[in-house]
Parts: sequence; C-alpha cells; structure tokens
Amino acid sequence: MDIYQSYVDNIKSAIANDRKSGNINLSDFSGVRNDFQKAETRTRLLSETKQVTPLRSLQSIVNELGLHPNFNQQLGLHPDFASLKGTDNIEKHYIHSMFIDIKGSTSLFRRYEPETVLVITNTIQRAAIHTCMIFDGYIQRLHGDGMFVYFGGKNQDRAESAKRCLTAASLFTYFVKNDLKDLFSEQGIETIFTRIGIDYGKDEDVVWAMAGMAEISEVTTCSLHTSLAAKMQMHAISNGIVVGDNIKSLVPSTFYSPVCNRPGKENNRYIFTIPEESFYYTQYDFDWMGHLKSLDYITTNQLYGTINLKRRVPNIIFPKQSDNLKPIAAQSNPYLK
Amino acid sequence: MDIYQSYVDNIKSAIANDRKSGNINLSDFSGVRNDFQKAETRTRLLSETKQVTPLRSLQSIVNELGLHPNFNQQLGLHPDFASLKGTDNIEKHYIHSMFIDIKGSTSLFRRYEPETVLVITNTIQRAAIHTCMIFDGYIQRLHGDGMFVYFGGKNQDRAESAKRCLTAASLFTYFVKNDLKDLFSEQGIETIFTRIGIDYGKDEDVVWAMAGMAEISEVTTCSLHTSLAAKMQMHAISNGIVVGDNIKSLVPSTFYSPVCNRPGKENNRYIFTIPEESFYYTQYDFDWMGHLKSLDYITTNQLYGTINLKRRVPNIIFPKQSDNLKPIAAQSNPYLK
Repeated sequence: MDIYQSYVDNIKSAIANDRKSGNINLSDFSGVRNDFQKAETRTRLLSETKQVTPLRSLQSIVNELGLHPNFNQQLGLHPDFASLKGTDNIEKHYIHSMFIDIKGSTSLFRRYEPETVLVITNTIQRAAIHTCMIFDGYIQRLHGDGMFVYFGGKNQDRAESAKRCLTAASLFTYFVKNDLKDLFSEQGIETIFTRIGIDYGKDEDVVWAMAGMAEISEVTTCSLHTSLAAKMQMHAISNGIVVGDNIKSLVPSTFYSPVCNRPGKENNRYIFTIPEESFYYTQYDFDWMGHLKSLDYITTNQLYGTINLKRRVPNIIFPKQSDNLKPIAAQSNPYLK
Repeated sequence: MDIYQSYVDNIKSAIANDRKSGNINLSDFSGVRNDFQKAETRTRLLSETKQVTPLRSLQSIVNELGLHPNFNQQLGLHPDFASLKGTDNIEKHYIHSMFIDIKGSTSLFRRYEPETVLVITNTIQRAAIHTCMIFDGYIQRLHGDGMFVYFGGKNQDRAESAKRCLTAASLFTYFVKNDLKDLFSEQGIETIFTRIGIDYGKDEDVVWAMAGMAEISEVTTCSLHTSLAAKMQMHAISNGIVVGDNIKSLVPSTFYSPVCNRPGKENNRYIFTIPEESFYYTQYDFDWMGHLKSLDYITTNQLYGTINLKRRVPNIIFPKQSDNLKPIAAQSNPYLK
C-alpha cells in the first residue's frame, strides 16, 4: 500500500547499510570510512522517522481525508485524565484499549547487526504510532515490539472512536502483512507479523487512576476490558485482529466471526466468564481486509487483491469529534466509516 | 515474609472494603454514607502505597542491610543514558533486563469491584517497584500487570548488579508465592502468580537509543538479550524465574538448571540459536529459594520452610557501586551476595 512507502524505503536503506548480512560491499571502502558512513546513514534513517507527523507517503491519507490529528502527546498521560497524575483520585469513563504486538522481530538479530535491528524496529513502531495518531488514537505505552493505544475520551463519540480504532488497526496490519512481508521475503527473512487485540470498556467498567508513584508512574485504566484486550491480542492469529463483544455491539457489521469458528478453537468462544452473574464474553476475529475494502476511500485492485488509497477525492473536512458539527459532518462525510 | 506485611495489610483492607464480594456489611450504614466511606478508604489505601520509599515493613531490609537506593527515577529514562532522549545517537553498554509478569489478576474482576482490583494490583506492582529499587534496579516501564526493570549501568559492577537483580526477583517471587497466596486462598480466589525472565546483554550486544518520538518516547535498549529476557519470562513456570546463559556465567552458582530438565521440555534447552555462527543460547530455571536461603541476612524456619529477614545484625554499609570503596566494601560486607 503506497501510503507506507516512506517506511518501507527507510527499512530497505537500513538493510542495505548492514554489514553482518553482507549487503555492504566491504572492498569499496577502507574500514574506517565505512564505519563512519554506516553510522552517518543510520543517524539519518533514525532522524527521518523521528518526527511526530507521519512520513510523506502516509501524510497523503491525512491530506486526502482532511484529518486533523493532535500530535502533541505524552506517553502514559491521556490528556482527558491527566489531572489524576500524582493524586489518589479515580475517574470512571469509557475507553477503547488496543494492544499491538509485532512478532518475529527477535529473529532479525540472526541476520543483522543490532544497530540495523534498531532502525528496522523503530521504523515499524513509528509507522504504528503515526497510523494510530492520524485516527485520533492516543499512545499510552511503547513496548519493545509493540504498543498499547487508547481510542476515545471525553466528548468523543464512542462508536466513531471505535471505528477509527478498527481502521487504524486494519491499515497497520495490511502494511505488516503485505508491504513488510514483500520486503523481508526478498531478504529471505522469516516473516514478521502482527497480532492485535481491541476491546471497549464502558463507563461503569473502567477506572482511570495513576499506577506507580512520583515519576515512576502512568495514568492508566484498571478495567476488565483493558485486560481482555491484552489477552485477545495473544489469541489473535498471525496478522489477525481479535475484538471483544462490546466492540461488535458498538460497531455492528458483518466482519466479525467468533474465534470458536476457527478449526481447533471450537471450545474457545468465551474469553471470560462469570457464571454466577451469567456473564459470558465472546471474542471475535475481525475481517480487517473486508473492513478496509468497505471504506469509500480505499480502492481494490481486483487482479491482485491489493488495496490502495483512492486519490484526488474532494478534500472533505474530517471533523474533530469534539466539534458540535459532528452529527452533521458524519452525515455529509462519506469517509467516516 | 514479614518485610511485605504492610503490602499484605493494604490488600486485606481493600478486600474488606469491597462490596461486590460481600465483605462489607451493608445493613450497618445507609447507602450514601457507605459509598462515601468506601471511597475514603480506597483513597487512603492508594495514598499509603504511593510513596517512592518502601512501606514500613520493607523499609526494615533497607535499614538492616544499610542500603542506599536512589528513589529519584523517571520511567523510560535511565539516568546513565538520558542524554540520548530526543537525539538520533546510540550508545553501546551492557545491561541486565528483567521482565516481571503478574498472572491471574484478570480473575480478580470476577470477585471484586474494579476500584478494589485497582488497589490490589497497584499495591502488588508497588511492592515490585520498591523491591527492585532498594536493590538499585531502574524501573524502565510499567505494564498493567507487571514491569520491565534494568539493573546495572555506568560504573556499576556487572556481576554485583546481576546478583542484586536475582535477589530482588527472588524476594518478590517469595512474596507472591507465599504471602499473596495465603491472603487470596483465605478469600477463595484463584492463585495470583508471577513469572520472571532475566538476561544480561554485554556491551557489544546492547544498543541504547530513543524509541518513538518527541514525548511519545522512551530511552531503551535494542538487544537480543532484552528480547530474550521477555521471552524467558513467558517460558517461566508459575512463580518461576528463567535466566539466560550470560547470567549464569556472570554469577556462577548451583542454582541453575537448564529448562530442558523439566519434564516435557526436553527439547527446549536453547531459547535462541544461530547455527551458522554456532550460537546456541541456553535458558535456565533459577532456584530462587535456594538463592534466598544462601544469603547471610536470610533466616530459614526449618519446620515450615519459610524464610525471614535476620534482624539486629550490625548495620553494615551497603556501598553504592559507583563508590571507589566498592572493592574493599565487597570484601568486608558479608551481605553482598
């Protein structure tokens, strides 16, 4: 998908700059000059992806959809709940929790120098950060090979936020499954894949509070549905997205299939039960490719089954959800899927 | 182990304050007064553990051993590598990576209100933070139900740092396996347990750099051995600690047993291999109880097999490892195990 081309190019350059894998022709340079050039290239590649705004290729989706993301974020301090920092207060408020894991990155150490692995994993993680941010996601926490992202907040429509979350997850998964796979299979590298879990916790089920103490802390959620989103990620297949029943109810579509429909998973319908409360919570595989193809701004290449961003559409304003204009805009904006 | 008594008491109070589990006698109060008292108690319990210094019972180990921990920390910004923040620079330097996971906490939502789960999980996490900090650990990242901690740094002896890491991991595991188990089994709750993975990455194998961008960032390590520590945690048994070959070589003892010695794990000796480089990396189960019992400041109750802190020992200074006195102190201090 060409919106990720800048990230793909960055990773390709990092690989071409790696000596362990034999991509650099050592005979061309003296060792010293080579070391210097290598470091210089690495610094440039790290610098190019370090910006908070998406790289040029991904910027096109921001422009085409007229998105207005807020890139001014700080880890572990969701702006709507930042006042809880340093206090013993709590607040109950809905949120969507998404856990993105990138699997297989450890195998990169087999093939590349750790400096090259750094550029590759940083670039993939930054592609995920940018993708989530342009759809109004809030980056809660970075993991070494993944991240934890919230969608939604005060005065943000919960269904709209959930849709954006699903779209961000779908786009990133497409990137990993297709663009990254092509890149790494050219290199004869074991596939890198992603697994994503998403769930929606309602107001009464989500406690916002500070974890930790002083500056060894984050404002975070204590909620069954945050915990379940992390578990669903572990239940996802390679390049799969698993979501909870609450997401399905909030954003109904035909793209959900109970995990128990997978061969061998027949007994796995419920990810969590409280029998004495008759609480049986279902997890679903989300057909993210179907979801992407259903979006008005995505075009499908029928021959190859690949997708791309539809260009030169009218540049309709994608409203901030806190706008009072939202209900009107939602009707008139064909891209709010 | 009575050094964790303050944490146990805190969790007991939270449980006694929970209404879902029926621990509060509703007939004693009007609903309003009850809600108010409940919130007041929760706030007090959160406040008591929020301090950066260990709670009173754990403070005793600091006093008895004469430890001088640095509690002035900030997540994702190891003081020795903080200058990398915001830059594209890298630095190569050894580090010990420890991943602590607390399993089974999701089941708490079956029994308790989310506000009570918050106090319980926060208290357990804070016990882990305090335990690591008193042994000079640096808290890199909090997870919902665990954390990622570094031990070591510039001018810190790598073997001493690894020993302290193993001791912190062992004490916390003892707390979860014994003190927490007793507490929760009284409540008829499924066991909560911990799983820990630890590995040592040498200077040439650890790249320090910034991940993410702007304030959506952390200074962190890109290293095979950080990645393997996270994987080893997943290989650990309930209340088990798995460590890498590098740790075993750095801190030799009889407390290591290859994971492949476990029944059913016969083919699991190597957690990572690069056959073309003849690199075969072994993971070991660490006998943390044996390690604890070997420490001069731990006393064992032969009848029950329980352990405790030996009290009223001479208050010997536990040197900061950056002191030039370290080599002398290491000889004269019987507690530097």
